[in-house]
Order: sequence, then structure tokens, then C-alpha cells
Amino acid sequence: MAKKIEGIAASSGIAIAKAYELKTPELSFERSNIDDPTSEINRLDKALEISKQELEKIKAHTLKEIGEEHAEIFSAHLLVLSDPELIGPMKDKINEEKINAEAALDEVATMFIEMFKAMDNEYMRERAADIQDVTKRVMSHLLGVTFPDPALIDEQVVVIAEDLTPSDTAQLNREFVKGFATDIGGRTSHSAIMARSLEIPAVVGTKNITSSVQKDDVIIVDGLDGNIIINPSEEEIQAYKQKQADFAKKQEEWAKLKDEPSFTKDGEQVELAANIGTPEDVEGVLNNGGEGVGLYRTEFLYMGKSELPSEDEQFDAYKTVLEKMKGKPVVVRTLDVGGDKEISYLDLPKELNPFLGYRAIRFCLENEHVFRPQLRALLRASAYGNLKIMFPMIATIEEFRQAKALLMEEKDSLKNDGIEVSDDIEIGIMVEIPSTAVIAKQFAKEVDFFSIGTNDLIQYTMAADRMNEQVSYLYQPYNPAILNLINTVIEAAHAEDKWVGMCGEMAGDSIAIPLLVGLGLDEFSMSATSILPARTQLLSLNKKELVKAKEQFLAMSTSEEVVAFVKEITE
Amino acid sequence: MAKKIEGIAASSGIAIAKAYELKTPELSFERSNIDDPTSEINRLDKALEISKQELEKIKAHTLKEIGEEHAEIFSAHLLVLSDPELIGPMKDKINEEKINAEAALDEVATMFIEMFKAMDNEYMRERAADIQDVTKRVMSHLLGVTFPDPALIDEQVVVIAEDLTPSDTAQLNREFVKGFATDIGGRTSHSAIMARSLEIPAVVGTKNITSSVQKDDVIIVDGLDGNIIINPSEEEIQAYKQKQADFAKKQEEWAKLKDEPSFTKDGEQVELAANIGTPEDVEGVLNNGGEGVGLYRTEFLYMGKSELPSEDEQFDAYKTVLEKMKGKPVVVRTLDVGGDKEISYLDLPKELNPFLGYRAIRFCLENEHVFRPQLRALLRASAYGNLKIMFPMIATIEEFRQAKALLMEEKDSLKNDGIEVSDDIEIGIMVEIPSTAVIAKQFAKEVDFFSIGTNDLIQYTMAADRMNEQVSYLYQPYNPAILNLINTVIEAAHAEDKWVGMCGEMAGDSIAIPLLVGLGLDEFSMSATSILPARTQLLSLNKKELVKAKEQFLAMSTSEEVVAFVKEITE
Repeated sequence: MAKKIEGIAASSGIAIAKAYELKTPELSFERSNIDDPTSEINRLDKALEISKQELEKIKAHTLKEIGEEHAEIFSAHLLVLSDPELIGPMKDKINEEKINAEAALDEVATMFIEMFKAMDNEYMRERAADIQDVTKRVMSHLLGVTFPDPALIDEQVVVIAEDLTPSDTAQLNREFVKGFATDIGGRTSHSAIMARSLEIPAVVGTKNITSSVQKDDVIIVDGLDGNIIINPSEEEIQAYKQKQADFAKKQEEWAKLKDEPSFTKDGEQVELAANIGTPEDVEGVLNNGGEGVGLYRTEFLYMGKSELPSEDEQFDAYKTVLEKMKGKPVVVRTLDVGGDKEISYLDLPKELNPFLGYRAIRFCLENEHVFRPQLRALLRASAYGNLKIMFPMIATIEEFRQAKALLMEEKDSLKNDGIEVSDDIEIGIMVEIPSTAVIAKQFAKEVDFFSIGTNDLIQYTMAADRMNEQVSYLYQPYNPAILNLINTVIEAAHAEDKWVGMCGEMAGDSIAIPLLVGLGLDEFSMSATSILPARTQLLSLNKKELVKAKEQFLAMSTSEEVVAFVKEITE
Repeated sequence: MAKKIEGIAASSGIAIAKAYELKTPELSFERSNIDDPTSEINRLDKALEISKQELEKIKAHTLKEIGEEHAEIFSAHLLVLSDPELIGPMKDKINEEKINAEAALDEVATMFIEMFKAMDNEYMRERAADIQDVTKRVMSHLLGVTFPDPALIDEQVVVIAEDLTPSDTAQLNREFVKGFATDIGGRTSHSAIMARSLEIPAVVGTKNITSSVQKDDVIIVDGLDGNIIINPSEEEIQAYKQKQADFAKKQEEWAKLKDEPSFTKDGEQVELAANIGTPEDVEGVLNNGGEGVGLYRTEFLYMGKSELPSEDEQFDAYKTVLEKMKGKPVVVRTLDVGGDKEISYLDLPKELNPFLGYRAIRFCLENEHVFRPQLRALLRASAYGNLKIMFPMIATIEEFRQAKALLMEEKDSLKNDGIEVSDDIEIGIMVEIPSTAVIAKQFAKEVDFFSIGTNDLIQYTMAADRMNEQVSYLYQPYNPAILNLINTVIEAAHAEDKWVGMCGEMAGDSIAIPLLVGLGLDEFSMSATSILPARTQLLSLNKKELVKAKEQFLAMSTSEEVVAFVKEITE
């Protein structure tokens, strides 16, 4: 009999296929004494070497199929395998304690994993996960058991697993892997993000998919609604095939709009742009009909490295994006470190409340040796396209003035050196701190544009950490307070003939879009795959009516009322 | 020759006297093996017992001279001395390792101190400080050296010290100790707060006062400007005696206003109230001419305990405050735990960003077994005075509705049981989260009053942890964004005929007061000792002019501009 399991819709689409369970093999071993440490160390070296070769392959595969940002994970894993602080103690242990390589590997790795896990630091906890992931691979080679290799899958399947490690996900071959479902994870977990990049339907966080499925069960993964059907009836299969076909048709409809501008039903135009992290992401932006890049997050240039990226390295990346975008606008956000984004070599202080701490522009203004090379790289790249620069986490007008002054200094210096710099670079700010939204009127006189970062703006306005489940009910994009702040920003900007974009999750959200059209938002920047659905939705919206509705929804008391209202007026 | 040292003005007034250095005696010892563990354990028990007796005395002295809140520190110290988890291992160590009591005490205490210090948790770090403080006392008795006993001081002195421990400060006899100065600490350090309670002039954070002063040096402590003069010239002494006399005269002037209402120069009345933590604080409120209690922090009832206070215990405290205030308004804030205020037995989760986490009303609404008894205690106490209840950390209207519904349920239940409950209890909220300030208009329809909590409102609006020095420049009470939010709240409230108070530091600040008068704030709640200076300042302010100036300062761009403007118009 068919069984239904609910989870979290992580990547759109429907998959129907046989289940294939991806499972780490049994890796138990006996700790034993050995006589010949040298041969034991050779065994360890060999296992490390094979693991390295495998990871190099997976990394290359990822780089080609998915992109640089994701391939960086494997660079981190490869670093672990070459880390003398980790490998050295293993060999010392073998030599001194005369124990087998398995025990040495396990004991040293466990020590580091426990140490990193205990640290109150997201970054170090991720490093613990990296070591765990890599250690399993090395252990499997020591024990001579096969480590799961999803790249070997050669028939159409739906992969199920407790969770998918980055290396698992990277190896999934889209030709055969039609979808996946996991026990754990959420919409922003690594595997979910990868699934969306790969456009593989996925449902995560089902809690018990692995224990509910038997070998050879057929399952349906409904990545649209977050459901899984195990052993569906013939009728269910037909119904889901229909849903699959409907979704494909919808995608075709969307695709037709790829090269169209973005208009509302009553002929009002807006811009639909994409958020990107690396130059490789530009392809997805263009394939999905993006009219620009509304947010280029430059952090990835700084991550998974042991030192600052050079000015030239940055220049190349910015230039590549600008050239690929062929004159379409590209809004680059300067370095936003701190908070939950740590970069080990920058030596950021440990803080009690990192989200309210020393991050982004606060850090950059005090660390000109980090900030100036980025500004120079951006200015040099400006000759190759339509660059706009924005500063993150601006809380006061002084901060904006200081950042702009540094930019102008570098511009003058480059020009004095005869280097070409565009004279049409717009300079704007992220609006993600309540203070800045409240006095947007004052800011609007000095900036060229605003980009509202709703992820942070919501968390600060509601005083609720968006990563903290205990207060997740307060993460309310439709709360009238948020809408009123957005309104303040847009009204202030328009009064000074400046434009306003939005680059948080909210910009691509189908409930939010009608509200934002009503508030007069000019640019919507979102995941590339959300652009065509958004363009389609816009065609059904009457801006004049939504503008009229504005006074109504801004005066509402709760998020619930707002949602009900949107549903009613967009029926 | 006279030497001048600068520090942080921690408590107002001028002291001129001989320096008396309070110094922990040399507590070094040899670790040695002993033959008779029983006699060694007896030595330890005796040292513990003497320490307990001393602490009981200091606690009683504190309770009488300063108040319950401060006496609680010594309850915590006494708990340490009786903690079997601490004392047990010491005795085990003596028995098993056959070492002297000094070594056992030191080794076990050090282990716990290091463990607690390493925890990323303000509360545990304070516990580490408690153990350190207590261990020194016990060690001095083991070693037979005299532990510093400030209560023994019998001539007029200025106490200087690296830092003052809570037990040091509690023993200071106001008759002889005319002032104090320390190397470390800030305006909100424990010793600074105690100095203000005791009304002893103090300068803290001088960095090097102890190393700059010789025995028998005369020093001047200028707690008004944060200066210290070592071995002043006769002219300097005369000048400071004049300053002292001027300050005394000012205090006399202030004292005349004690029973006066609070009026501006042009005859507009406001209310000047005080913030309190315990019933003992009421005396200070009345002595300083407080017209009400604008914030009764109820956390102290829950702190330094091993279990929840009973409903009756709470009822007694609330009733005492209401009775002592004789019909003057008393605004009680319901439990505000979490953030930086932890209470061990409530088992709050460890959070990455506690200031954006599970605190105050968020916790109370989900823990009715904690919240309902407090509401019942408050309702029962309402029959004994002029009670107003406010809920902390309200971010959404739903939260207020839920909290109010629980209060109404308890009210009905009490009335059904025939218990007297006032029918005139005003129910309000703290405005300390930006969302609430932004849609104050919507809130104003449902609440009876607002009390603006600027400490939190500023930190959330600027997205800057007010405890984090690295971003302390963003803690800007005069930032136009903050002033605009305050204006939004006051305009919204007055449109619905509701009143607005303020209970953050800002309400008693002499730069802020003219701005707040201009914005139309109704009630100012501050440290009791700030009330009379504020009442004096009000008499020099013309409200009509300040109201007119409002549009000007609300449109300013920076905090600096605002401060310059205030100085100019109040010259």
C-alpha cells in the first residue's frame, strides 16, 4: 500500500523512480598493536593518496557541472588531507603507540572533530564536518570497503539518504538521478541548495525516509509540495505524471518569457535581476532571463583560502562577470564578513552576539588593507561593463560617507596612474539595518540607489535571529512593520529620483511580489531560477490597483491579515 | 608635585583625603604532603566556617546599608562555600593525594574557575569570579594572613584598588571612606553601580592609579569629571574644595525640588519616575523626589536562587512596593529573562545570538507555569496601590494579545475565587524592538501605554550589541533614526490619548532630555539619583520652543549634528 511522508520542499519538480539508498558502509575496526610502524604509515599514506585522487576527480566534476563556489568545498576537503597538523599526529601515534593506522586515524580525527564541534562557532563546526567527511573516506580505503560512489549509478533512481554530504551531491549524475529525499536538512541546508543548482527535485527533512523505504520500492518525490509517496498506486502514478507534465508545461511557458522585459498586466515595467556568488553563476542568470545582477556577493572570493585574494584575482572575477553580462547592470556588494560568515585568516574577534557585531562595512572601514584592494579591483573592472557598487550593513550616514571617500580616493589614484575607470558607477547601500530604513530620507540625498536586504532587515527589525528555531515565528516578511519600513525607503528614494532594489529572499516570493509592486519597488533580485516564475506572476498583477491597496495593507496589524489580503486581491 | 590621572566618572561628587590601598595579601603557599588527612580536613573546615561567618556579616551589613539586590551577591558566595560539588573534591584530594589543604583548595578551585571562564557565557564567567573571590578569603584563613577588611578603616580616606570586589564595596563605611578610585572597570561595572547606590564619589578605569600612588599620598577624586589629582598643591585643594562646595550647593538646590512637581520653564508638566529592582530601592526613589516607579525590574526576584520564587513571595514584594509608593504609579515589567540575563534553573537554551533570541515575553508565553504565577501575584497586589503592568520585548501585536489574554484569564479566575483585584490596572508594553516602534499606530489602539526601552531599542535599531566594544560607536542615542522612532511612538500614542514613558538610560541624560521634551514624552524614568538634576534642568527648558525645533532635529543626518544643535538651543 502506498505510504505518504511529508518533508520540506527543497527543489521544484516531480521525480518518479526506484529508490536507491546511499549509505556509508560499516566502518568499524579493531584497535590493535603493530610491529612495523613504517609499513603501517605506508598504509595510511596510500589511503590518503587514493582519497586525494578521488576528491580531485569529484572536485573537477563539480567545477564543470555545478560551479566554482561548490567546488570550493572539495578544496577544503583536500586541505584537510594535506594538513600536517592533522596527519602528523596520526603518524606520531603509529610510531609511538605502535597501533594500527585505523586507530590512529580515528583517534586523532575524533579529537579534532570533538574540539571543533565544542567551539561556539559555526565556521569551526563546519570544519568538524569536513574532517568527519574526509575521515570516513580514508577509513574506507584502509578497511578496503567501497565508499559510496553515486557517480556509479547507471539506472534511473531517486536517491534516498539520511543526509547527503557535499561530495555525495556533487557526484549525482543528472542523467540517472531523478530526485532525492533525505531524513534531515532544511531549505537552506547544503544539499537543498545543491539540488536547486542542479535542478533535481528534492524533499529534505522527512525525518524517516530511510527507515520507511525498502530496496526496490518505487517512490515519488514531489519537490513542489514537499511530499513523498512510497509504492504509489497506478492512479497515484498517473496523477503525479500529470502534475509533472503540468509543471513541465509551466516551465515551457516561463521559458517563453526568457528574453522578454518584465511588465505588469497594466504595462508597468520593473527589473528582474539575480543574486550570484561567483562568475560561473552568470550563465544561470542569462539562461533564466535575468535582466541584471542585483547582488554579487563577493565573500566567496575570500572563502576556502588561507590568505586574502589579490587585487588582480578580484579584478579578474569582477571583469568576467561584467563582460558576461554585456552591459546589463551588475550590483556588486563589497565584502560582508563577520556575523555567520567567518574567514579564518581575517582573525575576527569572537563575539557574544555576532549578528550585532563587527561585520561588513564596520570591519572594512577599520581594515583598509582589506578594503582598498577590493575597491581598486572594482574600479578597474568598471571599464568592462555596467558596474554599480554597494556597501553592506550601513547603519549611519558617516559610515557611507567614509566608505565613499575611500572609493573616491582610490578612483583618483587609479586615474592619476592612467588606468581607465568608468565615470558612471552608481554608488549605493544595502538597507538591512532599521536605522537606515528609518532615515532613508536623509540617506536618499547622498546615495545613488538602495538595495533592501530583507534577510537581515527582518531579523533586526523583529530582534529575532533568523537562524534560531526557537524564535523563527518572528521571522515575518509580511509583518506590517517590515512593509512600512520598505515603504519609507521607497518613498524617500523616489522623492530624490533614486531607484530601490531588493536582494533578500523576499524579492522572489510570490506572496511578497504583489505587495512590493504596490510599494513601487524598482528592481527585484532573486535566485536565478525564480526569475521566470516571477515574470509570469507580474503579468497577472495590476500595479495601479496594488498601489491603491497600499494604504490598506500598511495599516494592518498582523502578518496573517496581510497574507489573507494578498490572497484575496490576487485571486 | 601634583600628578593628574584621568579615568571614568563613576559616581558624582568630590573627595579629598589620604589614599588607602586595598590590596589582597600575598597568598602563596607550598604544596606539601601531609600524614594526617583528618586534621588537614579540619583545617579546611575551620577556614570555610570562618569565611562563612564573615560573609554572613557582610551580607547583613549590605542588606541594611545598601539593599537586597546587592546582598544577593553574598548569598551566591555563601552558596559556593556550601557547594558539595566544590568542597567534596577538595576533601577527596586531601584524603587520596595526602596533600595540604592549601593545595587542595587551590587546585580544585582553579579547575572550576578555568572551566567556568572558558564557557562562552556571561553567567558562568561571573560564577568563576565568585569562586575566585571566595577562594581568596578561605586561603587567607588557611594561611593565617589578614584578608582586607575595609570595615576596619577608621580615618577619612580615599580607597584605591586594582578593582573592588563586591564584598570590598559592601564593607565600605561611608563615615570614613570618602571616595574611591580603581585601575579597571567602567560606568556599568559592579563597583561603579555600588558607588552610586552608596553616593560615594568614584573614578574607575584609571588603568594605573595603584601603581601611581605611594603610601600617605593625599589624593582628590573628582567623580564629576573623572579626574584624580595625586598630592595636589594647596591651590588645587582650594579649587577642588570650591568645586565640592558648589556641588553641595547644587545638591541643596536640587533637594529643594524634592517635593515639587516637574515643570518646564513654560509651565508644561511631565512625570519624573525611577527605575527600581527591589522593594528596598523605594526609599531612594522617595528620598530623591520620584513621582512614581517607571520601571520595576522583577528579575531580581528570580536571580540568585535555585528555584522559581513562589506566587506569595512575589505578591509580597509587589505589595510592599505599591504600599510604600502610597498611590503613586508603579509600572511593573513582567519577567525579562534571556539575552544577558540568565537564570540557571530555567534551563534556557544556549544561543548563538542571545540578544536576538528566546527571551522575555517570548519565553513567558511558552512557559505559562512561570508566567501565570507572576501575573496572579501582580493582580493580587493591585489592590494595594496604583499598579500598571507592562510586557517586555513585544515584537508583534499577537504577542501582546496573547499576554493580555493570559492576564485577563487570571484576573477572572481570581475574581471568581473572591480575591480583590483592581479594575484600573493599565496594561502596556515596552517599546524596545524596532517593529513595535514602526507600527506604534496599530499598537496604540490596543495598549494603555508605551514605555520606550532605549537600551535595547538602540541596539536593535543600529544592529549593534551594546556590550560589544568593537561596535560601541554605533550605540547612538541621539541618532536621528532613534529620535524618529521615538517620535513615531509618541505621535501614535497621543493620537489615541495614550501616554508614553521612557525607562532606558536615555531618559535621565541631560542631552536627551531637551529632545524628549520636544518630542512630547510624558514620563521619564531613570536612576533615582538623576531625578532632582533632571527636575532642575526641566525648569530651564521651554517646551513650546523645543516642540517647534522638533522638525529640525528629526531631519538631521547624524548624531553629531543633533548634539551640536541641542547645545546651541539650550545655551
